[in-house]
This record gives sequence, C-alpha cells and structure tokens, in this order.
Amino acid sequence: MTDGLLIVGEDVCAEVVNSADAFKAVEAVFGAMAKGDAYNFPVIREAIGYADALYGFKSGFDKAGKTLGLKSGGYWPGNMEKGLTNHQSTIFLFDPDTGMLQALVGGNYLTAVRTAASSSVSIAHLARRDAKVLGMVGAGHQSAFQLRAAVEQRDFEKVVAWNPHPEMLPRLGEVAKELGLEFEAVTQEELGAQADVIITITSAFEPLLMKSWIKPGTHIACMGTDTKGKQEVDPELLAAATVFTDEIAQSVSIGEAQHAVGSGLISEDDITPVGAVINGDHPGRSSDDQITLFDGTGVGLQDLAVASVAAEQAEKQGKATRISL
Amino acid sequence: MTDGLLIVGEDVCAEVVNSADAFKAVEAVFGAMAKGDAYNFPVIREAIGYADALYGFKSGFDKAGKTLGLKSGGYWPGNMEKGLTNHQSTIFLFDPDTGMLQALVGGNYLTAVRTAASSSVSIAHLARRDAKVLGMVGAGHQSAFQLRAAVEQRDFEKVVAWNPHPEMLPRLGEVAKELGLEFEAVTQEELGAQADVIITITSAFEPLLMKSWIKPGTHIACMGTDTKGKQEVDPELLAAATVFTDEIAQSVSIGEAQHAVGSGLISEDDITPVGAVINGDHPGRSSDDQITLFDGTGVGLQDLAVASVAAEQAEKQGKATRISL
Repeated sequence: MTDGLLIVGEDVCAEVVNSADAFKAVEAVFGAMAKGDAYNFPVIREAIGYADALYGFKSGFDKAGKTLGLKSGGYWPGNMEKGLTNHQSTIFLFDPDTGMLQALVGGNYLTAVRTAASSSVSIAHLARRDAKVLGMVGAGHQSAFQLRAAVEQRDFEKVVAWNPHPEMLPRLGEVAKELGLEFEAVTQEELGAQADVIITITSAFEPLLMKSWIKPGTHIACMGTDTKGKQEVDPELLAAATVFTDEIAQSVSIGEAQHAVGSGLISEDDITPVGAVINGDHPGRSSDDQITLFDGTGVGLQDLAVASVAAEQAEKQGKATRISL
Repeated sequence: MTDGLLIVGEDVCAEVVNSADAFKAVEAVFGAMAKGDAYNFPVIREAIGYADALYGFKSGFDKAGKTLGLKSGGYWPGNMEKGLTNHQSTIFLFDPDTGMLQALVGGNYLTAVRTAASSSVSIAHLARRDAKVLGMVGAGHQSAFQLRAAVEQRDFEKVVAWNPHPEMLPRLGEVAKELGLEFEAVTQEELGAQADVIITITSAFEPLLMKSWIKPGTHIACMGTDTKGKQEVDPELLAAATVFTDEIAQSVSIGEAQHAVGSGLISEDDITPVGAVINGDHPGRSSDDQITLFDGTGVGLQDLAVASVAAEQAEKQGKATRISL
C-alpha cells in the first residue's frame, strides 16, 4: 500500500468480503497459528463501570500474512434504544515494517463473517463428507451468518433448529428456505437424533445438548462460549468427542472446553488446534463413527485476517477512502 | 460531538495543544486516578519477532472526563533509515456512551507533551517554591520537551545538564538559551550539588545519580524508566526520599521504584500517587529539607487526556477532518 490511511466503512466491508473470502482468510490464519507463524496477544476485556458497557481489545501478529493490529470492541446494552448496534467493533491494521497505522476497517459485519467462517472451516475439515442434516442451536442475529457459511461446505438438504425462544426460529427458517433447504423446528433431543453437523451459537450458561442425544459421526461446532461461565453442551460430550479448537489457551479458559477441563474429564493435551488439521499435521476425523467437536472461541487474528482482505479489496475496487494523517 | 469520525493529524496536534494545555489535562487525570474515577487497563507490550519491533497498547477509562480509548504504539528501530520516526503512536478515542469510534489522533507529538506534562505536574506540586537551578540528566529528543514544560512551573535561572553522550548537550543548551536560561554542562556530582530540581530522561539500565550527590530539598522527577530492568537513580535515593508516582502498580513493576521495592528498601505503601497531592488528600512536600522523588512511568490515561483536548480544540478551530465510517 502507498502512504496514508485507508478507511473502509461497514457498508464497503459487506460489499467486498463474502463468506468464501472470509473462509480462505480464517483457514490460512488458523494454519499459521498452528505453525507458530501467527499469535494472538493477551486479550483486554473490561467492565468499564459506565453505561453497563464491556469494552476491550483483541490483537495479534501474523508473520506469514504480514498482518499486525487490533480489534477494539465492546458491548453497549443501551445502544439499541438509540438506534445503534449493541456490539461496536473497529479493526485497526498497522504496517509491520514501520508500525504506521495503515487501515481503519469497520468491524461489525466482519466479526459476524469471521465467526461464521470459523465453524465453516471446522466443517470443511472435520465433518463427514456425506453430511445432509444441519442442526442449529440458537436463532439470534449471528445464527444466519453461521448457516449461510456452513451450507457452502457440504451438500446439506435440511436444517433442524432449536432456540430457547422459539418465536425467533421463523426468521432462521426464512434464511434456510432462501438457501433451498427444508427447515424444521425440533426439540433438542430430536435435533441430536437428526443432525449430522451441529452449530451452537447462543449465550447460554448451561448445557443445551446432552451427550446421549448426539449420534455417532456427528460434527459439532460450539461457537457461543467466549467467557468464563458460559456453556452450551454437556462436558461428557467433550469427553466422548475428539476436540479441536482455534486456540488452546482460550479453549481451556474461556471456551467450551473450560468445563470439561475444569472437572478433569479431559486435559489440555486432548485438544488439537484445527490449524494442525489444515496444515496436514493431524489427520482430523479418523472414522465415520467418531464425534468431532470444534470449540470456536474467537481470536483477534481472525478479525485482522478478514480486515486485511477487506482493505485490499476495497482499495483494488476503488471503494476505500484514503486520507493523510 | 456530532456523528462521524474526527481525524486529527500530527501537525494539528502541535498547533492546538501546548504545554499548558497538556499540564491541565494530565493534572486532572492524575487527580481522577487517585480518586478512583479513572483507571488504566492492563498494558499490552509485545516483541513481535519481526523488524525488531516492540508493539503494544495502553488504554483506560476516565469516568470523570468521559474519556475512553487507547494508544497503540511501538518502536521500530529500522524506521530512521526510511526517514520515519522510530516511535509510532496513534490514539483512538471512543464515545463512552455508545462505544463508537469518535476520534483518531496522531500520538507522536502528544506522547512527548504528555510525558513532559507529567514531570511538570510533579514540579508544580512537589518542588520548593524557590527552586532556581534545574538539572537535566539526558539530552535526547524528549529532554527538550521536559525542559520547556518544567520552566513554566518555577522561576528557574539556570540549567545544569549531563548526558552519557556529551556531544548531544549543545542542542539542549540551545533550548535553554532560547528560554532565557544560563546553561552549563556538568558532571553528575556537580549536577546534584547545584540542582534544586532534577529531571532524568534517559534509557539507562543503571543508576546515573547516587544518593550522596543529591542535596536536601531537591525534587527529582525520574521519567525514563518504563520497563523491567531500566534504572536511572540509586535505590538508596528512593529510600531517603518521599516517593510519589503516577500509578503505583506501574511504579513498583516497571518504574524507577522497581529496584528499591525489589531489594526491600521501600515498600509499595511508601509510595503516594501524585493525584492525592493534587486532590489535597496528601500534603506533598512537608519541609524545605525533604527530598521528593516522582516516579513517572507513563500511563495510557495521560495519552487519552491530551488527545481529548486535541480533538476538542482541533474541531473548535476547524482544523480537524471529519469523515463518516
């Protein structure tokens, strides 16, 4: 890039980064992380004691992709009343050769697609090839992104879904129909019985899926747990499954594995970075009967990876603003 | 402020924030910190393993001043060859009511003035009223900022200076002359014997001033130590002095006090936040013979405070650029 600061707004991000772009970027950075070529810095997350807001930063450096920067973000629960999004994110990229600020990229849409890309990468590398039924646990704003990205990886024919608030399911059903898929609202047990691949994307603090409900050969991507105390599935399910993650340090501390590790059912050594599978250093799924589970905790490098694509594409397509500092 | 993102470049910062503005902002935020109305988040500082760069963030929230944000910064030793500054800093301010990015402010000049303001605040509140001779230990780029800010606080008549590289002293001498002050290059012992106020601003890793050289009643502002291992003065000097700081947590871990505390000469309880003096909760200097020492470690809230002034003034004076995201 040339001199000056590139500004890429929310609208432009949505125009220039689709789920296939996000998949490629996230897959590459997961691979780089497993090789030790990319690493995340410690996460800052603070309850600021004002406006009930949670505020913080995720940051890191990908030496392979030459991407350095941070995502600042937060959760402002009162924003909705003001006509604003409760989650507010901005991604800042710096030139690793000089430290100069390079790009400022809207982070709300990109956070959604990078999170969707994460479960999608796990499906591509871990789910059975013949998976036909996709189970969705959760029907909030993010669930549609997960669904759209997932269907690009396997020839799904049907979506079965459950949500703690059933009145939110029809909206997800509309997305499934738009994608040409049959849609059925089911109980949690029924979801386990039918689904070949399951994505959990909730803010739950207790298990929503029990081990006994899950059939052999299922791949489960747990995407909701990103804080101490949150939980989406039975810890016994992690003990029964082969467990993969984006980053082990987060998986055992703030991810879904915190509970199974905390209660001694599995240990840190039982968890494999999905990047090792991407790099061909781990075989991934070893049989059609194996249950695979991906603990997607969400790392700063995912944000930087998709923001880097957004900046590059926006500039190439003449959709970015360049200002001098 | 209204909608959109305010951009305030380096040149504008230098036009709209002078040392008196920085003094006022830093004094206020030190006061807010001591009251518990403002706090710094954990510092991120990483050797990224590329271009020999050090990169990180300082961040915090000042509830009193309604200032939320971070300074991203780093040290790129190869920049000079490329015609760029080795230190690269940018300050980002967020609206604490909504979490939205509010202003992007160049951080290089502001880092210099906020660091100068810090020793200046300590002089205003702790040095003897009749101080006439200012001792400067260090003659690098930052030393001129410290000198200019210091002379606004007392009726200094003379500057005595020492630097590990004596060939750098004439440049500092020019600044002194410009300010109407006599200037003398001296030995370290002579500096201690003459100076009523001393500012140390070096990157030293060993004591440059011994306790026995310092006369009673001196005020010393140690401004160079901001990392584990760095050191500017004899730990016995801290034991003999009444010690103040910007932030106790940093003072004892990465500041000048790390050595005196580490060797058991003083304890954390012996150190007072200068904000307590500002707020009138601590008397500060108690006699003309007392040695006072300020350990200025540099906190993110100083950066946010001066950036907030820069954004406000730049907008008021029509010197900021406003863009929509």
